[in-house]
Amino acid sequence: MLWEELSWPKHEKTVAAGATVVMPFAAIEQHGPHNPVVVDTCLSTSVCQKAVDGMENVLLTPTMWAGLSPHHMEFPGTLTLSLETYLAVIQDLVRSVARHGYKKVLLVNGHGGNVASLQAAALSLKHELGITIWMVTYFRLGNEIAEKIRHGEIGSMGHSGEFETSMMLHLRPDLVDMEAAEKQVWKRAHPLMTQDMHRGGLLNAPADFTRDTKPLGVSGDPSVATAENGEKFYEATAERLRDIIQSLASL
Amino acid sequence: MLWEELSWPKHEKTVAAGATVVMPFAAIEQHGPHNPVVVDTCLSTSVCQKAVDGMENVLLTPTMWAGLSPHHMEFPGTLTLSLETYLAVIQDLVRSVARHGYKKVLLVNGHGGNVASLQAAALSLKHELGITIWMVTYFRLGNEIAEKIRHGEIGSMGHSGEFETSMMLHLRPDLVDMEAAEKQVWKRAHPLMTQDMHRGGLLNAPADFTRDTKPLGVSGDPSVATAENGEKFYEATAERLRDIIQSLASL
Amino acid sequence: MLWEELSWPKHEKTVAAGATVVMPFAAIEQHGPHNPVVVDTCLSTSVCQKAVDGMENVLLTPTMWAGLSPHHMEFPGTLTLSLETYLAVIQDLVRSVARHGYKKVLLVNGHGGNVASLQAAALSLKHELGITIWMVTYFRLGNEIAEKIRHGEIGSMGHSGEFETSMMLHLRPDLVDMEAAEKQVWKRAHPLMTQDMHRGGLLNAPADFTRDTKPLGVSGDPSVATAENGEKFYEATAERLRDIIQSLASL
Amino acid sequence: MLWEELSWPKHEKTVAAGATVVMPFAAIEQHGPHNPVVVDTCLSTSVCQKAVDGMENVLLTPTMWAGLSPHHMEFPGTLTLSLETYLAVIQDLVRSVARHGYKKVLLVNGHGGNVASLQAAALSLKHELGITIWMVTYFRLGNEIAEKIRHGEIGSMGHSGEFETSMMLHLRPDLVDMEAAEKQVWKRAHPLMTQDMHRGGLLNAPADFTRDTKPLGVSGDPSVATAENGEKFYEATAERLRDIIQSLASL
Amino acid sequence: MLWEELSWPKHEKTVAAGATVVMPFAAIEQHGPHNPVVVDTCLSTSVCQKAVDGMENVLLTPTMWAGLSPHHMEFPGTLTLSLETYLAVIQDLVRSVARHGYKKVLLVNGHGGNVASLQAAALSLKHELGITIWMVTYFRLGNEIAEKIRHGEIGSMGHSGEFETSMMLHLRPDLVDMEAAEKQVWKRAHPLMTQDMHRGGLLNAPADFTRDTKPLGVSGDPSVATAENGEKFYEATAERLRDIIQSLASL
Amino acid sequence: MLWEELSWPKHEKTVAAGATVVMPFAAIEQHGPHNPVVVDTCLSTSVCQKAVDGMENVLLTPTMWAGLSPHHMEFPGTLTLSLETYLAVIQDLVRSVARHGYKKVLLVNGHGGNVASLQAAALSLKHELGITIWMVTYFRLGNEIAEKIRHGEIGSMGHSGEFETSMMLHLRPDLVDMEAAEKQVWKRAHPLMTQDMHRGGLLNAPADFTRDTKPLGVSGDPSVATAENGEKFYEATAERLRDIIQSLASL
Repeated sequence: MLWEELSWPKHEKTVAAGATVVMPFAAIEQHGPHNPVVVDTCLSTSVCQKAVDGMENVLLTPTMWAGLSPHHMEFPGTLTLSLETYLAVIQDLVRSVARHGYKKVLLVNGHGGNVASLQAAALSLKHELGITIWMVTYFRLGNEIAEKIRHGEIGSMGHSGEFETSMMLHLRPDLVDMEAAEKQVWKRAHPLMTQDMHRGGLLNAPADFTRDTKPLGVSGDPSVATAENGEKFYEATAERLRDIIQSLASL
Repeated sequence: MLWEELSWPKHEKTVAAGATVVMPFAAIEQHGPHNPVVVDTCLSTSVCQKAVDGMENVLLTPTMWAGLSPHHMEFPGTLTLSLETYLAVIQDLVRSVARHGYKKVLLVNGHGGNVASLQAAALSLKHELGITIWMVTYFRLGNEIAEKIRHGEIGSMGHSGEFETSMMLHLRPDLVDMEAAEKQVWKRAHPLMTQDMHRGGLLNAPADFTRDTKPLGVSGDPSVATAENGEKFYEATAERLRDIIQSLASL
Repeated sequence: MLWEELSWPKHEKTVAAGATVVMPFAAIEQHGPHNPVVVDTCLSTSVCQKAVDGMENVLLTPTMWAGLSPHHMEFPGTLTLSLETYLAVIQDLVRSVARHGYKKVLLVNGHGGNVASLQAAALSLKHELGITIWMVTYFRLGNEIAEKIRHGEIGSMGHSGEFETSMMLHLRPDLVDMEAAEKQVWKRAHPLMTQDMHRGGLLNAPADFTRDTKPLGVSGDPSVATAENGEKFYEATAERLRDIIQSLASL
Repeated sequence: MLWEELSWPKHEKTVAAGATVVMPFAAIEQHGPHNPVVVDTCLSTSVCQKAVDGMENVLLTPTMWAGLSPHHMEFPGTLTLSLETYLAVIQDLVRSVARHGYKKVLLVNGHGGNVASLQAAALSLKHELGITIWMVTYFRLGNEIAEKIRHGEIGSMGHSGEFETSMMLHLRPDLVDMEAAEKQVWKRAHPLMTQDMHRGGLLNAPADFTRDTKPLGVSGDPSVATAENGEKFYEATAERLRDIIQSLASL
Repeated sequence: MLWEELSWPKHEKTVAAGATVVMPFAAIEQHGPHNPVVVDTCLSTSVCQKAVDGMENVLLTPTMWAGLSPHHMEFPGTLTLSLETYLAVIQDLVRSVARHGYKKVLLVNGHGGNVASLQAAALSLKHELGITIWMVTYFRLGNEIAEKIRHGEIGSMGHSGEFETSMMLHLRPDLVDMEAAEKQVWKRAHPLMTQDMHRGGLLNAPADFTRDTKPLGVSGDPSVATAENGEKFYEATAERLRDIIQSLASL
Repeated sequence: MLWEELSWPKHEKTVAAGATVVMPFAAIEQHGPHNPVVVDTCLSTSVCQKAVDGMENVLLTPTMWAGLSPHHMEFPGTLTLSLETYLAVIQDLVRSVARHGYKKVLLVNGHGGNVASLQAAALSLKHELGITIWMVTYFRLGNEIAEKIRHGEIGSMGHSGEFETSMMLHLRPDLVDMEAAEKQVWKRAHPLMTQDMHRGGLLNAPADFTRDTKPLGVSGDPSVATAENGEKFYEATAERLRDIIQSLASL
């Protein structure tokens, strides 16, 4: 069920029924010359919709498309909140949900820049509100399927790389320009640093998308993306997300 | 053009072309037992899309659906930011737009609770950023057509009343339950107070949607709404909005 | 009664008696070469004092002279708070009043730049505090008398124009230099924009007092101002304000 | 000269002349059953006006009457800002003054609760703005005259005690009710604590005006106050303040 | 070198020499009945000191012992900042370091509750300041050694569990009470959740240390801790940290 | 007892026993060419440790070494929080202490720049939390001993002058370079201004440590400092501090 489509008396009933609330958080930021700025919002919304499709007693809110992207601001089209504003937005929205009596919340993230803010806010909110609140970044759920079917090497699955571009080719091929899709791989300064979205590291270096270091605004290899793989990524992440939602709902 | 569908190189071109940016702000809040909580977001997005349809050199951003609705929080399904957070969101988004070099911004509002915040932020932003920034609440542009074709009396055009319900019947009839649509009119405490959305007053009293004062969460008369009038409201407001955008674009 | 002149035991009695509290908000900002920067504070304080004169069970607080004037900062003598600070000031003061047990508050505004902030704060405060809180901008109450006796055309009644200058000539002629009073009228970019303080428009453009656009810092025609009309503006606005206060007090 | 009475072209001249700006900060808070809540605002405004009277190239701003008084909130009539808001107000006002080009600022305080906030803000502002900014609490300048002519013992000169009540008897006798003026002296918990407004201590304990500890809201002995001494306090503090202003102006 | 032991002329030289700055962030929070509240501060300080020992051109700042621990506040002795304050502290400290001209910063974390805040702040700071800023949580660097020598099963290495208690037994045995050290293992609600400090999961659930869910305030198995293993954990983490610092310094 | 060395069950007992909490606040800021930046943190920690040594039912927290030093930022090595952040840190830490049930708090300050912030926060906290909270700046307790044994004249006891340098020579002689210790005395602009740390004035001018006005970053005369006097300063201030703590504990 979509949160937005219910009237307040229907919300009153879903609260009473102990419904689980799924809240997508994404971004509008540059995704290289081959992808539109809507990638994160498009993909996380689509995956969430598929995951909750047909589930009883689960509500999906609209996607908060304004996210944290100071690291993409050198490329036009990026919209960002400040860190302080973004944390306030996350907290106010979850407070609204909790105030009405909902007790189980899953934050589903679709943007690298949001990860830490959502985790930080979740920690604070759990203890302020006394609700159960979980957080997952949907694209990390694609690690197993990616391992099996990826065309690129480790490193290909970064920002607007093989993974996201494949999914866009499946979901919104009209918005992708594969002729502009070019490989641009980031050299790690230390072996403990993150390699790509499915190979996290112990050493954290903030994402770096300046014109100097990454002139295309891309990290990874979008040139090997295919719609066929995109569909598989989409289905696999949605399925694992659905499983998480079911666990939360059954608490 | 939709902001979200462009890649960064395309944004670079629209900045260079001096494009005008239209930014819709709405809300997810209760709209009585007959309407879903998405009304404001649905209507302002639809009107904006129609208004910019086919216009050259005009960009429409996604609709910021999180708004200011403390006055609706007694009814479940309402999502609200705090006043401080909402002002920060408006400012951060416009700052992002301006940072990329866009110089003309129109804030299009679709929610009564947002009016003052958007005006306050616009005043501060204009002087901080040195851009041209206008603000209009789309439903107030329906005053002339409403005068001509309204079925209800003065007072019918309040929150989730004749105007909004008519438009929903035209745009999303599947989400409206006319059997639950009931008249609930607010008695003004002073003759200088606002009468309905098209009859603003000199004396401001904050909207009051407590369970005591308005048990349905409605102000106005949705029972006289028709899809036929809704279509006319929709077209008339979109047309006047288009005219405003053209004026701004031609500066 | 003046809030400031009572001791705390007397305040304890006025709380118990259910007194109404009138709180003036104004500004210290440039008013062109012919008027001092105190205009808004002087006029709104005077009108409020006349309005409450002799009323039982009504308290008038001191005028908060620090307001929101980023749009006048190019002209020296202007003092402004930031938007965030101003909203905090309004809220803290009303919270203080409510904490002592007062339940009815009228915010009386005398500065264009404050309108949106006061409305935004009032919305938030009403729901936080559960009190009755109304807001009115005193000079808008001069619309009827202005219609009858104005010397200038539509547009003359802007910032430091015919209306304010007339009232200053009546109340503080020693501070007005009519030789420096010059007409400076703003050309509207769109017909739906506000024309002057008594002709509000549907389309909001933040006030623009840069040295380039308005070298004098004036909007309107102060040259046609007279003390005689100023007295009538003063009496008419005070009378209507008194009527509003009586309505609030009688709730 | 009064800041508020100048037009912007006159301010332009005083900036060019290197004028010194005197800014009074006070409060509206309970002053026991014998004094009105305006005491601090009345006294600091009066002393400042006398101090600057006739001085060339010195500007006096309006008195910021909203101060920091959480410790008086158990007594009605007290208006307080939060600590965060108050610091923002001080900083925004001084920033406004500095932005126009004024380089010398004296903050004159008249309320115990404001001392630390003004000092803290002054430290931060000096280094942010690069201006010369001094701060003095006017009543501490009465230490020498008080030593000579006081009627009460050490401890009599506290909140709404001998000093302030004497000055009110001189300046606004109509607002003082000497029949309600009663001695209420605070017993220090440690010999290093402050004894009264002219005997500061090394050990700081925040002022404590709860109904339990000080049922009258008074600290000191107002019963020995006289208008005659009040006049002398008034003249002596104004004279010393004038001397400080002259030093600052001559830098 | 210790930041704190240098005078400003020596800092001037280290800036000129392009020194790397290591900044430890920890916490003072409950660590069960067998450990003191200083555990995180003690361990991260010790590991950092060992890591930088003898390194040229590397500065170690004092450990910021105030961290983010709302989730431990049910147990006395815990000191926590709010989320907003903590982010401001991190940012202000790094801004100070950068303002003096240092260009390479390593944030070393020693507390689970701080991870997200430090990552979020690092992202924002990198783009505000243009410096190189990395972040690592020291205990995660113990994953390889733990794998080899741990006595407990997966899950033993949680809050105040085998890892931290072993290190305390090595570094400050006087503060550990092994008789009170009791196993208390958390059952994961979903297989994708984190298992212990060396087995992070894809699904994030904020740490939960309420009296109900974890009456001891422990997560893991401190009863199998030994000083011998503690020494090895200490040396292994310090060595890997040293390697990271060297990489950063050699950029 | 050290707060940090207790486990939570021990804290539970000290809360029940009504323990007094001593909280040191200091800074890391430049102290001229002869002293390290740790001076304030070193001295206030040492004095506090000596003062509480052996006392029953008194807890000493770690020293908050991050303080308010915008006035020292021209000299590298200084770390400062913003005014807003610093006030938040003080408040959050005291709130944590009070939340666990402690009712008596002594803030011990060791840095001139912190005085006003700590006093301002203490005022606000006392009324928010209802606890007893005192504040003292330890070095001001050295006024009597300094009067007796000082080698320098009035003015010698300023920032990194005779007093602090003497104590450093006693406590950490390895960190002091007496060859770089040079007299640098500040000329007061008005006789009512503070003369040195033991001769406070009525007129407050924020400390001024720019390269222009004080090229060494020193105020006073460190050249006359001796370890012998340092020991006496240390013992005398610790003894008076102990006496204050005993008074608070015995309430």
